[in-house]
Amino acid sequence: MNIVTPEPRAFAVLGGDLRQVCLARQLAADRHEVFTYANEAREHSAADKSIKEVAHPSALPKGCVVVLPLPAVAEGGWLSAPLSKVKISIDELLDTLAPGTPVMAGMVKGDLARAAAERGLRLVDYFEREELAVANAAATAEAAIAIAAENLPVTLGTSRALVVGFGRIGKLLTLGLRGLGCRVSASARKYEDLAWIEAFGARAVRTESVADIAQDYDVIFNTVPARVLCRDALERVKRDAVVIDLASKPGGLDFDAARELGVNVIWALSLPGKTSPITAGAIIRDSIYNILYDGGI
Amino acid sequence: MNIVTPEPRAFAVLGGDLRQVCLARQLAADRHEVFTYANEAREHSAADKSIKEVAHPSALPKGCVVVLPLPAVAEGGWLSAPLSKVKISIDELLDTLAPGTPVMAGMVKGDLARAAAERGLRLVDYFEREELAVANAAATAEAAIAIAAENLPVTLGTSRALVVGFGRIGKLLTLGLRGLGCRVSASARKYEDLAWIEAFGARAVRTESVADIAQDYDVIFNTVPARVLCRDALERVKRDAVVIDLASKPGGLDFDAARELGVNVIWALSLPGKTSPITAGAIIRDSIYNILYDGGI
Amino acid sequence: MNIVTPEPRAFAVLGGDLRQVCLARQLAADRHEVFTYANEAREHSAADKSIKEVAHPSALPKGCVVVLPLPAVAEGGWLSAPLSKVKISIDELLDTLAPGTPVMAGMVKGDLARAAAERGLRLVDYFEREELAVANAAATAEAAIAIAAENLPVTLGTSRALVVGFGRIGKLLTLGLRGLGCRVSASARKYEDLAWIEAFGARAVRTESVADIAQDYDVIFNTVPARVLCRDALERVKRDAVVIDLASKPGGLDFDAARELGVNVIWALSLPGKTSPITAGAIIRDSIYNILYDGGI
Amino acid sequence: MNIVTPEPRAFAVLGGDLRQVCLARQLAADRHEVFTYANEAREHSAADKSIKEVAHPSALPKGCVVVLPLPAVAEGGWLSAPLSKVKISIDELLDTLAPGTPVMAGMVKGDLARAAAERGLRLVDYFEREELAVANAAATAEAAIAIAAENLPVTLGTSRALVVGFGRIGKLLTLGLRGLGCRVSASARKYEDLAWIEAFGARAVRTESVADIAQDYDVIFNTVPARVLCRDALERVKRDAVVIDLASKPGGLDFDAARELGVNVIWALSLPGKTSPITAGAIIRDSIYNILYDGGI
Repeated sequence: MNIVTPEPRAFAVLGGDLRQVCLARQLAADRHEVFTYANEAREHSAADKSIKEVAHPSALPKGCVVVLPLPAVAEGGWLSAPLSKVKISIDELLDTLAPGTPVMAGMVKGDLARAAAERGLRLVDYFEREELAVANAAATAEAAIAIAAENLPVTLGTSRALVVGFGRIGKLLTLGLRGLGCRVSASARKYEDLAWIEAFGARAVRTESVADIAQDYDVIFNTVPARVLCRDALERVKRDAVVIDLASKPGGLDFDAARELGVNVIWALSLPGKTSPITAGAIIRDSIYNILYDGGI
Repeated sequence: MNIVTPEPRAFAVLGGDLRQVCLARQLAADRHEVFTYANEAREHSAADKSIKEVAHPSALPKGCVVVLPLPAVAEGGWLSAPLSKVKISIDELLDTLAPGTPVMAGMVKGDLARAAAERGLRLVDYFEREELAVANAAATAEAAIAIAAENLPVTLGTSRALVVGFGRIGKLLTLGLRGLGCRVSASARKYEDLAWIEAFGARAVRTESVADIAQDYDVIFNTVPARVLCRDALERVKRDAVVIDLASKPGGLDFDAARELGVNVIWALSLPGKTSPITAGAIIRDSIYNILYDGGI
Repeated sequence: MNIVTPEPRAFAVLGGDLRQVCLARQLAADRHEVFTYANEAREHSAADKSIKEVAHPSALPKGCVVVLPLPAVAEGGWLSAPLSKVKISIDELLDTLAPGTPVMAGMVKGDLARAAAERGLRLVDYFEREELAVANAAATAEAAIAIAAENLPVTLGTSRALVVGFGRIGKLLTLGLRGLGCRVSASARKYEDLAWIEAFGARAVRTESVADIAQDYDVIFNTVPARVLCRDALERVKRDAVVIDLASKPGGLDFDAARELGVNVIWALSLPGKTSPITAGAIIRDSIYNILYDGGI
Repeated sequence: MNIVTPEPRAFAVLGGDLRQVCLARQLAADRHEVFTYANEAREHSAADKSIKEVAHPSALPKGCVVVLPLPAVAEGGWLSAPLSKVKISIDELLDTLAPGTPVMAGMVKGDLARAAAERGLRLVDYFEREELAVANAAATAEAAIAIAAENLPVTLGTSRALVVGFGRIGKLLTLGLRGLGCRVSASARKYEDLAWIEAFGARAVRTESVADIAQDYDVIFNTVPARVLCRDALERVKRDAVVIDLASKPGGLDFDAARELGVNVIWALSLPGKTSPITAGAIIRDSIYNILYDGGI
């Protein structure tokens, strides 16, 4: 409804994990001409026979929109291609593209940006799109709830949960947990966010008082990349409670203290890509469509 | 939980409507010494006998926190006092206050700000607090839902609703309507907001396409202070549908067209103050507490 | 989806209030031939010009399905026809129908049943259909929530509600109130229902202990046609709280005590018919379709 | 709130899996004297040192309430004791109990009933309690949702689900899935249940038409112990969709057809006991308390 699908055109979907494979299929389903490279291990189904695998990027037709994976580059400057036997450097790959080629990539670092600029490519980082961040947060929140449901010895519907941090993931965790009947508290620092927490039907807690109340919860989700769950807080966590850390490295809790105290911690990363590749692919597709539409590309 | 109640101190709660009366009671219930003036018509109940009505602001003790209503000033420069026989100019009122007195007021305009500055008063506009805006939005969304439930010839639970605009009120309308089983679409302009709408479980619609789909809904809530609901849109609104305009003046629809076309429009303003004075009072109380806490007042 | 619309045929929609008018329109919209009588005051819109008003039931074509209103009979044995100037006895009306005519009616009492049997008519009471009772309960619960939102001095989203009784309406009130962020308790007598209450995410309370906890709530909905809200309970109800009685006569609370104690009671009856006539009409239409389908009529 | 905890007394908690261990702890936490036997492998924590393990049931004090596990008897007539090295026949166990001893057991079959009757024991099957069935259904629905979230390649929040059957589990699945933003259809045979489905905010589908619409869903939950998901239905299930069968043996789908057609089926049994032993234990505890209260035992 709210995404404008471009007129059929050519896309080259290179490298990547299962998300990238799903993305290739979804582009094909939207009647685009799709070329793939370096993600062959996960063969495309019969239904996708319109997808053409090329032997080398130099075989890609001119005028393709090139889609690099999320992240685009693996350590060492190689195209990230965990499903493939191919090993190709980003430089070699970019050398095959004509100046002006639109290149969509996820988590662009300085090297890639420079390399693309040198070759006159139109590089855009879809991972910086806010709409992708929101949709990813929704998928992450759902995956985290599933992890909790599985790992808690109680049901969420009869338990009390604390969500530390009220950013994108914190907001959507709060809504999802409430949707399952869980009694939810969420923490924030700003008055404004505390008001939002209550407007979402949860109990608002100042982040600085989390250590005082950690004993009240059956499950604690951390979404803040800072040591909110310090030793003091972890000491109070109930036996049988589970702490799920969703903050990217270095994470938001004192892991040494957690280990010593025997707190049950689950470090949940890369959630949407792993557990929901079709949705994760569709989220990237939507952002690419938006980039093309806005850029008149 | 998240609001720090100040140690007992003196408050002067002046003028105002029912919200202000409720606020006086709530301050008294928190063990503060409360003085009132110019809101006497709505007598305080026996339970509130600790509240002292003064005959003139000059009788207020030194050191009070003075709380003016929302809005503070009525047309002509008078204290806004719809429940009272008293007519006192803001200037006369402020003249009675010692320099340095903290004065909390809602919707402060230039005249009041100047008058307070001249007298060395510490004026703060609680209506500019974001946490108040959020809590008011929650109350407004609920009131709007009640208006819809009453005025629609269908139940919300079996109907389709369109929320135009995804600011504070739009977000909370979307959640509340979904909570009643309504099928909700919401409109926004930014991709990011469109992603939030879907993450909230509603259908996302670009605001620019609202005119094309207005015929699909049993109720349309406008929250945008701009002519999104133009004649084109109104022409398509279904017979039996209701349009509820929540945007402050000049509102967000073409009223002339609506009248001509016979569209059933409800202009719903000042919602939380009118329908939920206790909650509206408590929202002001919380912001005042936050202001005092932050300011070290 | 789940209702089988009959092939176009003739219906006679007689008497009744706005629901009945809506029902006539909905039948016409499903391409049936619709005749009306004794509900002329509320003229059918231009869009419904296929609806034919007859001057007397004797003018109805043979083979119609006759639909009497809910309730079918007014005091004195007249067709219930509050929108009409017509005054016709049920006996006179039934005399015009050929034996074997299917007659759908709501709230059939002994007299009507006997009169129909004597004339060999196939009378069915659609008000006895369980699916109608459920759908009506949904509409009633929503209307009761709107009444609460309007009449409480607090918002539902910040308040605590008690639902007395966990039948159809009690269940749907509990879900709807929770959907608006209200903290809900519900009472029941059976262990099984107490378990359902908790499974619905609310707090379960034994009905016999309602009198002990009445002071904890901002709003109390009674759905039980028995004196659960006795004087003891009413004495504890908070000042500012509202009691909404949804139980049919004689209602579920001690009205004399309530008046004496100054408890704010709202007696909310006939809700869905009054506030949502289109939905109320559609509910009757669906049941009539189900009756025709099942009966092979 | 709604459960009356008995005065401290003695319980013997015998055999069983993790649920039974949790139950023992919960009884101890309610200040009862707790004896255990045949569930020693899962040692009780330091906090539970009041729990006394006995070497043989003959060492149990007179007057205990004896609690057998769910199910009570393993194949061959042995006490079900998967966590223990002990192998004791139910007969030998019951021989140690004095006539009149209250024995709570789950899933009582004819043999156990006979054996208890012969010895004059007061045997009650807590698994027949309706409140236990409801609470178990809530836990099962939540576990099934977690299984779906994990196994689907899409997020539930962006997907369409079909719940086949609208009994206890079907109702709670519908509510939980909706709480996560999933678009839910549910099927039933009775008009009344179809009306409930819509009142719960889902789309109602006649069970007999499930085969026609199976292609519309990303996940299908079967709760009906009958072949609703026949070959015809399975043939239409989308590639990438998942079918989760919650019906007890023999299950509700044509497994041979599913295997042949390559449909991704998950047979999810014994859910609450496995994934939420604390909640599962508490559910049994509550029913035992209710049995004791009602029986005046």
